[in-house]
Amino acid sequence: MLRDWLAHRAATTPERLALITSERSWTYAALDADATRAAHWLRSEGVEAGDRVATLLHNGPAAVLLVHALLRLHATLVPLNTRLSGAELAWQLADAAPRLLLVEDRTVPLADRARAEPGHAPVRIIPVGALFDAQPADTGSPSPSEPAGPTLHLSHDPAHIVAVIYTSGTTGQPKGAMLTAGNFWWSAIGSALNLGTHTDDRWLACLPLFHVGGLSIVLRSAIYGITAVVHDGFEAGTVNRAIDGEGITIVSVVAVMLDRMLDARGERAFPTTLRAVLAGGGPVPRSLLERAAALRAPVVQTYGLTETASQVATLAPSDALQHIGSAGRVLYPNEIRIVANEGDASANEAGEILVRGPVVMAGYHGRPDDTARAVRDGWLHTGDLGYFDNEGYLHVLDRRDDLIITGGENVYPAEVEAALLGVAGVVEAGVIGVADAEWGQRVIAIVRLDADAPPDIADRLRSRCRDRLAAYKVPREIRIVDVPLPRTASGQLQRIMLRERAASLS
Amino acid sequence: MLRDWLAHRAATTPERLALITSERSWTYAALDADATRAAHWLRSEGVEAGDRVATLLHNGPAAVLLVHALLRLHATLVPLNTRLSGAELAWQLADAAPRLLLVEDRTVPLADRARAEPGHAPVRIIPVGALFDAQPADTGSPSPSEPAGPTLHLSHDPAHIVAVIYTSGTTGQPKGAMLTAGNFWWSAIGSALNLGTHTDDRWLACLPLFHVGGLSIVLRSAIYGITAVVHDGFEAGTVNRAIDGEGITIVSVVAVMLDRMLDARGERAFPTTLRAVLAGGGPVPRSLLERAAALRAPVVQTYGLTETASQVATLAPSDALQHIGSAGRVLYPNEIRIVANEGDASANEAGEILVRGPVVMAGYHGRPDDTARAVRDGWLHTGDLGYFDNEGYLHVLDRRDDLIITGGENVYPAEVEAALLGVAGVVEAGVIGVADAEWGQRVIAIVRLDADAPPDIADRLRSRCRDRLAAYKVPREIRIVDVPLPRTASGQLQRIMLRERAASLS
Repeated sequence: MLRDWLAHRAATTPERLALITSERSWTYAALDADATRAAHWLRSEGVEAGDRVATLLHNGPAAVLLVHALLRLHATLVPLNTRLSGAELAWQLADAAPRLLLVEDRTVPLADRARAEPGHAPVRIIPVGALFDAQPADTGSPSPSEPAGPTLHLSHDPAHIVAVIYTSGTTGQPKGAMLTAGNFWWSAIGSALNLGTHTDDRWLACLPLFHVGGLSIVLRSAIYGITAVVHDGFEAGTVNRAIDGEGITIVSVVAVMLDRMLDARGERAFPTTLRAVLAGGGPVPRSLLERAAALRAPVVQTYGLTETASQVATLAPSDALQHIGSAGRVLYPNEIRIVANEGDASANEAGEILVRGPVVMAGYHGRPDDTARAVRDGWLHTGDLGYFDNEGYLHVLDRRDDLIITGGENVYPAEVEAALLGVAGVVEAGVIGVADAEWGQRVIAIVRLDADAPPDIADRLRSRCRDRLAAYKVPREIRIVDVPLPRTASGQLQRIMLRERAASLS
Repeated sequence: MLRDWLAHRAATTPERLALITSERSWTYAALDADATRAAHWLRSEGVEAGDRVATLLHNGPAAVLLVHALLRLHATLVPLNTRLSGAELAWQLADAAPRLLLVEDRTVPLADRARAEPGHAPVRIIPVGALFDAQPADTGSPSPSEPAGPTLHLSHDPAHIVAVIYTSGTTGQPKGAMLTAGNFWWSAIGSALNLGTHTDDRWLACLPLFHVGGLSIVLRSAIYGITAVVHDGFEAGTVNRAIDGEGITIVSVVAVMLDRMLDARGERAFPTTLRAVLAGGGPVPRSLLERAAALRAPVVQTYGLTETASQVATLAPSDALQHIGSAGRVLYPNEIRIVANEGDASANEAGEILVRGPVVMAGYHGRPDDTARAVRDGWLHTGDLGYFDNEGYLHVLDRRDDLIITGGENVYPAEVEAALLGVAGVVEAGVIGVADAEWGQRVIAIVRLDADAPPDIADRLRSRCRDRLAAYKVPREIRIVDVPLPRTASGQLQRIMLRERAASLS
């Protein structure tokens, strides 16, 4: 059994800051009291152990409090993406079958759109604001002398499903990854044993809390007894100000966020108080890592998945500069294999990344067949491609579904994109394969430019690719677009959507 | 299963320093290779999974290597105290029944004395120096092509008995506490979540590695991937130099060591690189804590036992000055209760300290009855006395067996000793109860003075006690001695021996 993390901190470090949002801050004692209040309120709304409770919330106090409150009821959080379409939301609600859907003013219209979908499953929708109107201590009882029902749970079975998180769906239909208390615990411990944990750490969450990258910060902070700083969305200037003036020591980002932070900083180096910038959500272009290094940003690439409660491999900060471009070594006590042609790949040979260990999810909610396909003998088949270099450092290439095979040669889109992103004037680049009668597939690049791009940019792009890449990797065609490339809410490029657009155009 | 900690570090942080001794230093890669060598050597000497291997070693590389080597054989270390008498050693060897006893030049005479004891149990005695003469990689095979026997174990059942450590025996017959891989793992994690862990930490072990306070540093360091600095015994000047000039960030001491370190420093403050001085092995006098604070030593008192693989409660560094004299809060995920008169004591009420959680030992080797008495419903009955203050901080008073009851009033020796130690000129003080026809027991103090003690010291001591203590706590008699008071190897005052001496004198 795992003792409730927030309760342990409220007992041992009550005066330390637990949470800072744009609205106010909470000590561990205050967050503990509010989580108890929130748990009683949820119970008064009919939530029981084993129930799922869906949320449609932007980052803020409610999203944090509900994590702890649901844990104390031994219920399960289903944090839904606020950027879904009505149809997507209706589908996920039907799939998750939650007892309640908690909404805020801003997300009521989306919930209404889901409700308007034909054949939607009925679900009680409750404004989360009521949580803050609830009476302290015990909101359910009309009189203080009346018992408040069963006491809250302050210890948790490692197998308890803390959250069901729908994978962001770069490919295929979303599936709800069931993440346990044990998954989050081991994720936190593995990260601590890699990055270290300082009692005065402040970990900034500017990723959505409905993604595992954000949610895991909330749980990890309580486990460490450090301060979670939660931003309501990502804004590069606000993040830079928090780093420069508000004592942020660790921040988790995806590549596109880091890019915007660097743009907004100009030449100003990062302060030494910032000890790690965790860059995840897909491979980070080398040119971006080099720009960051020039401003002394302690960027460490990380490889993680929803199905592993976040990080699986992360560079050690001491390795950040020597192993730029790598996602480092596996976090204790997990294991990683690279499998090519049914066997373990040799050094520098690309293959599918497999992960085994206590961070691997309990399965996909309601999908035993998908679970059995994904997790075999304890090994999660990630569908991602990567390799170990000669020194055993992991390099992540691409989603397997994004791999381009042209004339029998493998082309990893991220490698070609990195070459394109190294050219001044390029804002975004996506590389896909399209069907080709002669070669099977041919390589196509889609590029968005900024206003200052030189007129001969197309020549520069071709020249750069020829200089840096094998001939078979050089795009046969470079399409310039002026709309942003399709990305998931966490900033991952959705190459599947690029392929669909390309197919509809050709 | 827990992956072998050293192997994980050799794979992920091979170039980091794992161990520094006075002889040389080892990276994680080098320590891993030498531990493998040591394991093969042990196997060639007949050690198999489940065996116990006793050692009679001073602090040094062999004592560290054997910890990891035995783990990889799924064998059990029995680190014996080099200061035992021949009779005591013979007794512990008979009790532990090890496959081998490993000795070094300095401890051969002691082993011989044990062998000369009447009725000693026969045991093979092997000089550990052969370990360093062993061939690299595979010492057991005459030819490199011959298989080296079963491969080593690189993952460990949390229930595996890593070590049997005889409790230092402040009272009664020694018993071998069986400590598991899970005990040491949870101890390390609980400590990390309290003190934090920095990737550049250096933890100094100047406590003997045959005590849990020293041994746990070896395992904890490998778990964290930090550097263990191992001194061959305690010398105050050497410890101060390591702190001032060799980057020590954490050091574990007992009160008498801290006292000597402060004496040796004079007015020189500790450097800010030192982030924690863990003071354990019994209550630390307030006067000593105040002297340490004046030199900016970040002393945090800790309460731990052999039976809990070291720390159970430790002050958070941020609480060190506000809660001087307390051993802080319980380490995650353990629990502490104070029991008085069969029920939970109220705040400020003294009672027996009970501990439950994953750091509690598997039991006493070969003593199911003692184990059943000590551990009931998962609660370890420590035999130590303490209380929680109004803010829930633990204060440790004494061993229950040391409690003095005089005229129905409880007197805690440590409290009286602290008053005596506050008088200039007092080097050591021990307080015991002796039988008294009228009061049941009466309070006696035994005090050792330094050469500068003023001539009216006896008056000063009595006056101090009358000022600071209730009348029934004031010693009826103060005996001045000029030999050191009896202490265990880890520096704990042995009041039982004071009582025996007092009984033989009266």
